[in-house]
Amino acid sequence: MNKIAIGIDIGGTNTAFGIVDQNGNIIFQNSIPTQERENIEDYISDISNELKIGLSSIGDDFELIGIGVGAPNGNYYTGCIEQAANLRWKGRIELSKLLKQHFKVPVIITNDANAAAIGEMIYGGAKNMKDFIVITLGTGLGSGIVINGNLLYGSDGFAGELGHIIVEPRGRKCNCGRMGCLETYVSATGLVRTVYELLASEVKPSKLRDIPFTKLTSKDVAIAAQNGDEIALETFRVTGEKLGQAIADISAITSPEAIFLFGGLANAGKLLIDYVEYYKEEYMLSIFKNKIKLLPSELSEDAALLGASALIWSEQEK
Amino acid sequence: MNKIAIGIDIGGTNTAFGIVDQNGNIIFQNSIPTQERENIEDYISDISNELKIGLSSIGDDFELIGIGVGAPNGNYYTGCIEQAANLRWKGRIELSKLLKQHFKVPVIITNDANAAAIGEMIYGGAKNMKDFIVITLGTGLGSGIVINGNLLYGSDGFAGELGHIIVEPRGRKCNCGRMGCLETYVSATGLVRTVYELLASEVKPSKLRDIPFTKLTSKDVAIAAQNGDEIALETFRVTGEKLGQAIADISAITSPEAIFLFGGLANAGKLLIDYVEYYKEEYMLSIFKNKIKLLPSELSEDAALLGASALIWSEQEK
Repeated sequence: MNKIAIGIDIGGTNTAFGIVDQNGNIIFQNSIPTQERENIEDYISDISNELKIGLSSIGDDFELIGIGVGAPNGNYYTGCIEQAANLRWKGRIELSKLLKQHFKVPVIITNDANAAAIGEMIYGGAKNMKDFIVITLGTGLGSGIVINGNLLYGSDGFAGELGHIIVEPRGRKCNCGRMGCLETYVSATGLVRTVYELLASEVKPSKLRDIPFTKLTSKDVAIAAQNGDEIALETFRVTGEKLGQAIADISAITSPEAIFLFGGLANAGKLLIDYVEYYKEEYMLSIFKNKIKLLPSELSEDAALLGASALIWSEQEK
Repeated sequence: MNKIAIGIDIGGTNTAFGIVDQNGNIIFQNSIPTQERENIEDYISDISNELKIGLSSIGDDFELIGIGVGAPNGNYYTGCIEQAANLRWKGRIELSKLLKQHFKVPVIITNDANAAAIGEMIYGGAKNMKDFIVITLGTGLGSGIVINGNLLYGSDGFAGELGHIIVEPRGRKCNCGRMGCLETYVSATGLVRTVYELLASEVKPSKLRDIPFTKLTSKDVAIAAQNGDEIALETFRVTGEKLGQAIADISAITSPEAIFLFGGLANAGKLLIDYVEYYKEEYMLSIFKNKIKLLPSELSEDAALLGASALIWSEQEK
């Protein structure tokens, strides 16, 4: 029998899940919106039902070894999601326990960015690296930090919350309740907030003035920028500067070999990356200048899902 | 024969050095000012001559195993000091090579804060901890980060430069050439700069108005604060707030069990610590609130010297 693992990637907007073999082939996958269900139990049931359909569709020649989950504030040590700012379910969610009610296999949880980092290490551009960071740019900003070949979990399992370092004291209000966090500037929502700040402070004409706050997406901003819209271009500059500054900070702390950008906003490509690269070096402490590579993730959108499933394989090796 | 190691702690102001046995007993020690000699060779000769006097004074029953050095920007991998902002010798200093010209034993170098962290782990309050940070508050601000029982060196040996995360964009000019670094606010010199900022912005009377910038020391500020001087008290509040914010940032990244404060400014005691403790929790991301201990170093001023010598013992265990 071929061994298979389930990978689940819980994002602020969508939840992707799939069945993965030991070579990283996704033999079944699907996704559902993350925030539609009021009760976490219903949400887990929806995912489990879809996965059971998937499992029955692939035949009998497979043995399910375990389930790996990447989730916001997912805790490797406790198997819980705890106080995730971007999820509707508050407090402590016993995710591992809930999943085990549907599948009688081990469940391993970590945060979504850590899962992406494991994916990058096993299947992507970090195959030969021991010290690197994956920054995930989506609804929020996450990070998975690998030090000397191991994921950094810290004393309580929650290390790597780069999205919540304060890059602008007395700055923008964050979902976490504090002010000036990196992800209030560098994320899909941060980008939109920057557009509105610039629309308020500048008098330049912009197509973006016609779109209400609740409708404006990072894709709209990218398209406007590609068409030369000055507000949109300045938005990417501001976003790139804040991320470059934060990369300089995290580099001074952990001295990585490379930093990978992953996720929806990272796909804005050159519009954002060129500014990030410029400001990374502009803000970098001299001993780290021109040393630390900024790289696009070599993984597809499935990285976090693959990384989540890889939690199972890496645990088996221990 | 009893094994002994030499420990050298190079600070921005003074260099302490000593001969230490395997139990952490300092059997000889002395110090010289760090910045008096124009040539690094002369400075190393001065230290070496003092140490040779020390070695001959303790008799023949000792075998020198090696020399451990804690130095600003000291690199474990290369044995060099590279581009230290707070030292007069610029560029790359081949410290290990220079010391080996005087002593035919292995030389191990790391930065001064890493040496303090090793000291804390072997002889101090972090004996049973695997994830902690030592912040050294002196002329500048350094940090030694221990993750899962190992010092964090990073890909190039320079990790742990917490003094150079940017806590105030467009803020104070730093010796490193950039702006808004933590150590421009939280250090002996940062404290003096805050006094002067407050003397400019406030109209309150203060004894500190009588002292010129170049004469004002952190000790003066501490004495003024103890006497109820409002400018001095506000200076400690501002300093404590900036350090509390930075501790929240580094906690979100590495999730330590405890943070130890060590060095001259840390000795300001309750004046500073109470504010740091308050703002640490005020700025802390909710999942880390009331978890991360703020502790005074349990080591004396000799911590970095002991830690430097302990580099030799810990290397022997490998």
